[in-house]
Amino acid sequence: MTVSATTRGAPRVVEAGDYRVTIAAGLRHDFAKHVAAVAPAHHYAILSDEDVAPHYAGDVVTQFARRGQASLHLMAAGEVHKTRETWARLTDDLLDAGCGRDTTILALGGGVVGDLAGFVAATFMRGVPVVQCPTSLLAMIDASVGGKTGVDTPAGKNLVGAFHQPAAVLVDVETLRTLPVAHRRAGLAEAIKHGVVADADYFDRIRAAMPELLEGNAERMLDLVTRSVELKAAVVRDDAREHGRRKTLNFGHTLGHAVELVSGFSLLHGQAVAIGMVLEARLAERLGVAARGTSDEIERVVRAAGLPAVRPPMLDADAILAATRHDKKARGGSVAYALPARIGVMAGQDTGWAIDVDDALVREVLG
Amino acid sequence: MTVSATTRGAPRVVEAGDYRVTIAAGLRHDFAKHVAAVAPAHHYAILSDEDVAPHYAGDVVTQFARRGQASLHLMAAGEVHKTRETWARLTDDLLDAGCGRDTTILALGGGVVGDLAGFVAATFMRGVPVVQCPTSLLAMIDASVGGKTGVDTPAGKNLVGAFHQPAAVLVDVETLRTLPVAHRRAGLAEAIKHGVVADADYFDRIRAAMPELLEGNAERMLDLVTRSVELKAAVVRDDAREHGRRKTLNFGHTLGHAVELVSGFSLLHGQAVAIGMVLEARLAERLGVAARGTSDEIERVVRAAGLPAVRPPMLDADAILAATRHDKKARGGSVAYALPARIGVMAGQDTGWAIDVDDALVREVLG
Repeated sequence: MTVSATTRGAPRVVEAGDYRVTIAAGLRHDFAKHVAAVAPAHHYAILSDEDVAPHYAGDVVTQFARRGQASLHLMAAGEVHKTRETWARLTDDLLDAGCGRDTTILALGGGVVGDLAGFVAATFMRGVPVVQCPTSLLAMIDASVGGKTGVDTPAGKNLVGAFHQPAAVLVDVETLRTLPVAHRRAGLAEAIKHGVVADADYFDRIRAAMPELLEGNAERMLDLVTRSVELKAAVVRDDAREHGRRKTLNFGHTLGHAVELVSGFSLLHGQAVAIGMVLEARLAERLGVAARGTSDEIERVVRAAGLPAVRPPMLDADAILAATRHDKKARGGSVAYALPARIGVMAGQDTGWAIDVDDALVREVLG
Repeated sequence: MTVSATTRGAPRVVEAGDYRVTIAAGLRHDFAKHVAAVAPAHHYAILSDEDVAPHYAGDVVTQFARRGQASLHLMAAGEVHKTRETWARLTDDLLDAGCGRDTTILALGGGVVGDLAGFVAATFMRGVPVVQCPTSLLAMIDASVGGKTGVDTPAGKNLVGAFHQPAAVLVDVETLRTLPVAHRRAGLAEAIKHGVVADADYFDRIRAAMPELLEGNAERMLDLVTRSVELKAAVVRDDAREHGRRKTLNFGHTLGHAVELVSGFSLLHGQAVAIGMVLEARLAERLGVAARGTSDEIERVVRAAGLPAVRPPMLDADAILAATRHDKKARGGSVAYALPARIGVMAGQDTGWAIDVDDALVREVLG
């Protein structure tokens, strides 16, 4: 067992509704123990991708093989594989491996693996438990909490899916070591979002700690993951199905998803969300919803994280606008945005945290 | 509006947990009114099949078009089309039609349409409301209550799916007029099952009314549908996710599904279940679980309904046995059955209503 300096001290535990998020350095060596406590099964099916599995799957599968049947099922890495076809193939692989209802699924990987494995679990024999073991910063602080699962279709991201709460979320921050630096930067976009949406102090702390975070300082990462999970869990706890306050977490995502889609997924999710946050904050200022300077403040932190803050010129503005129309947050034919009032406070409480914005204004801000 | 003799009198209403089952003759002329009361939406997507739609879809779509956007989406009729491919295609059709989260899906058809439309609804943008409008006897008394949705895979029936409770179930018994008589007989298999599982008096009443039921006597059908829905709703109400008593409703279905699968779906579901009930009751008698004569009693009623009671010789017994091993009710490698103690009473309360049966005995009973 590799023990890093950060394993000293007890794991951090965040209650997220019906399940717990456990965060520690080196936690992966205890995954089987934790899973056996909350979702014991006859068969443990570990779903991972071809990038993550070589680093971590061997030890994890071995742990589970000591406790029952264990099998490893791989997908190719990347958002382009988050499809109904991959979902169907993984489901068939589990059936071929003899998985029945007494199966617990482990999602070992980034957000794509988590979303896909979660959707396999949600629909396998009408639902088996899933334990989320996120290995990317984005998945640790965002995708693993909230129970959203799903896949993309040619018409857009996450248009098919289900709400399926995990039995547990197990976060080993040591897995961030093998994460490419671009993905670490992209993950910071969601942490910045959590600051904008709910906690101005946290926003300031991220800004101050940016150099250390970019170096991958383990103690800072542990703090960051814990605080982001706490904030997200607090919002999600009372609004699992996204009828109310949870919509605030969509900040940056309406334009972000559109940008990501039009880029053909050549932009990372976090890069697209960074652009989305800056542009949506600009919308909010033009509408008189946000305090002046809000978008500039966001842009400075986004740029400090090494993330893009403007629409890349090769991505057509009209195409991005059109893509927002098919976003699943489009209700009744008009597009609603989650917009900030200022750093740490969202606007729109009176309108269900959603503010309708005219296409013309969006087009203007897209530049 | 066609008013039959049976429309006199108020609709029968059965409470099924969070939703209501409304049963009446001629109810289809009021579908939009009922749906608007429980699941108002911007867009109403009516899913049906090519057999049912010509009879009923025109009037139904017209009703909804008066209240919002309405679109009709068709699938080919039959269990062979209850696949992930059809699910994906219908989902894409809804996206193309501009359906967003503010969509209510209507399932207008038999069990296949209900399962498939239910699964589309369960997974469309992570879940939109579905109203089940069953037009076959089987769907009215079985599939429409309980929230099970799903599709088949090459490995077996309903291996992929979700629990998704309908917003309402609307049953127009007049639609049974256009149901082929073989399907009416097949539907009676599930009614007989309800008698075996929970109500000996009901079992006797079905036997006594069999000639009238086979003639399609509307008043008898209304009584039958109402009593079966009551019984099923009572079982499901307390056990939506099938961890306990709901398993008793699997009676006849472990072998029934296997027979249906091996027949390549050339047998109707109800025909396969009829065979399954007789054979599983035989298993129960051989195990000393069921009172002697139980299987003969079931066989007599099944035959009176014009349903098969033995394994068709062209279906290989070993293949049927093998097919039970992939049934999703197979737990931990062994196959559990829901077995009767006598007509109206199920066995196995101590073992979670499931009794493990050796393959050898199953093979013997298959003949």
